[in-house]
Amino acid sequence: MTPAPAGFVVGIDIGGTGSRAAIAPLDGAPRFELDGPRVAVTADGSTAGELARGLLAGLREARPAEFAAVVGCGIGATGLASLVADPAGLAVSLRAEFAPPRPADAPAPAVAVAIDAVTAHLGALGGESGAIIALGTGAIAFGSDGHEIWHRVDGWGHLLGDRGGGAWIGRRALEAALLAHDGVDASGSALLAAARARFGEPAGWPAQLYTRDDRAGVLAGFVPDVVALAADGDGAALAIVSEAGAEAARSAAAALVPGLAPRVAATGGLFGAGGALAERFRETLAELRPDAELRAPLGDPLDGALRLAERAARGELVARAPSLWLA
Amino acid sequence: MTPAPAGFVVGIDIGGTGSRAAIAPLDGAPRFELDGPRVAVTADGSTAGELARGLLAGLREARPAEFAAVVGCGIGATGLASLVADPAGLAVSLRAEFAPPRPADAPAPAVAVAIDAVTAHLGALGGESGAIIALGTGAIAFGSDGHEIWHRVDGWGHLLGDRGGGAWIGRRALEAALLAHDGVDASGSALLAAARARFGEPAGWPAQLYTRDDRAGVLAGFVPDVVALAADGDGAALAIVSEAGAEAARSAAAALVPGLAPRVAATGGLFGAGGALAERFRETLAELRPDAELRAPLGDPLDGALRLAERAARGELVARAPSLWLA
Repeated sequence: MTPAPAGFVVGIDIGGTGSRAAIAPLDGAPRFELDGPRVAVTADGSTAGELARGLLAGLREARPAEFAAVVGCGIGATGLASLVADPAGLAVSLRAEFAPPRPADAPAPAVAVAIDAVTAHLGALGGESGAIIALGTGAIAFGSDGHEIWHRVDGWGHLLGDRGGGAWIGRRALEAALLAHDGVDASGSALLAAARARFGEPAGWPAQLYTRDDRAGVLAGFVPDVVALAADGDGAALAIVSEAGAEAARSAAAALVPGLAPRVAATGGLFGAGGALAERFRETLAELRPDAELRAPLGDPLDGALRLAERAARGELVARAPSLWLA
Repeated sequence: MTPAPAGFVVGIDIGGTGSRAAIAPLDGAPRFELDGPRVAVTADGSTAGELARGLLAGLREARPAEFAAVVGCGIGATGLASLVADPAGLAVSLRAEFAPPRPADAPAPAVAVAIDAVTAHLGALGGESGAIIALGTGAIAFGSDGHEIWHRVDGWGHLLGDRGGGAWIGRRALEAALLAHDGVDASGSALLAAARARFGEPAGWPAQLYTRDDRAGVLAGFVPDVVALAADGDGAALAIVSEAGAEAARSAAAALVPGLAPRVAATGGLFGAGGALAERFRETLAELRPDAELRAPLGDPLDGALRLAERAARGELVARAPSLWLA
């Protein structure tokens, strides 16, 4: 392994609920963090690039000296493979954000942009072989040994998949609420009451959702209520939250392809929040892959983005479209 | 009943798959029809108003003499109650489209705008008491006696409901296709092959969907393949199409509220297309409401829009937000 260059690294994590950025010294001392808005998808595609630029500008303003000494930048973003037209070009343009003023002997840092699953994997397994399942607003599983195997499962977005993620849970819960409202199935009555408290009368829900570019985030905004109702034993909420755990286990098992160590980490706030979700996840994973060890995640996707930045700085990365792009 | 004024009526039907307009003499002689694009939902809401204006301009250009003699205009549109900010204002502004050149003794016609369920009901049951279920791109059920009872079920759009409609079927089928692609559940393999043939490789699907304002129409575009596979006996496709029929029956039964005649009509292309859908619909409705008579629809929503126009011309309508607005 090449010795680490002196200096700082920047990590950025861009998701459907929010975004975060951190700048940290390579020796691992305490880092400085910023929060940013969540990603949206417009007719021009994902806003991930703009968000990343905004966060870099924020870090530069808050920590100008450290920013001038950045040697690597790692970015993980949702929808990068499918909703950003040119991820390689994005990496090049983000590298330009590190233009002078910099010391004369400090070239622009290495920049790596990756799908969120890559940074989630690096954060949770710290570079070891295995599979991760990341449940945030969306849901994506990823199996990798960091070298030859890069196997993605799901991450298809709130209309096509993201099975078990926040938007998936929110959508199912609102569907159940409206079945109660429509007089079709009363089991969603408690969800209906909770949704009314959060979103107002059902007649106004379509306008709150269909006119927005961040529909997935709006749907996921209902998750805290669903999880709370599930914890209280509400049958409809419990069924949705449990099924989310089963879906997450199926995706994780599918990501654990031959050649990988039988190791799984589950990451994202949903695993901590929902007792029933985490429980059903463990049960289903044990049925599907009794040989797999379930590891507590070492860190979160922002930790993974910093680790990616460090590897980029060391020159240890090789571009791997449609998962990883370098500049 | 007031005697019918001489002249012509205009009917417009605006949906997620396309729009249609017709101009017809009040005595029921052959009508002239135009087709238009499907509705989209942007950050400003539904494009239904623009579409209606475009169709009126097309009719005026194609049939200027008849257009100058229009005495009533009826418009049914999807999303009107929730995604058009001011449906009453829309009725007023559409009435202005009938401005002179008109004969001096011909005032601007009465204009009625309604949710699509109202025109579907009028078209299918011809003004009789009962409930209809309309399956197009979306799904909405409506129970009415034409006077006191106006009871809507579903019509919540592709993220919140529209249970059993075209977008609902398309979304479920693409989800099943991606479960096969992801190695989670192979039962969707035939759906995956069909979806590849229509939309290309899965990696390109999110960009085809999430960047568009007519997502529901894109999803519903997969329905012909799903219905064909179901007819060939493919298990995954058959399950989705059958469940759509069951959902439609549940909505229809919920719309058949006390006070209505036990009469149901099912309208929309999906009932004709899918043998399994229509069969499961009949079975489920018979279980839920064994007393209900299942009627063949008298006409389609465009017929209903013309009937609405006729009633508007006769002064027989009373405004009924959030279902019907007059100008």
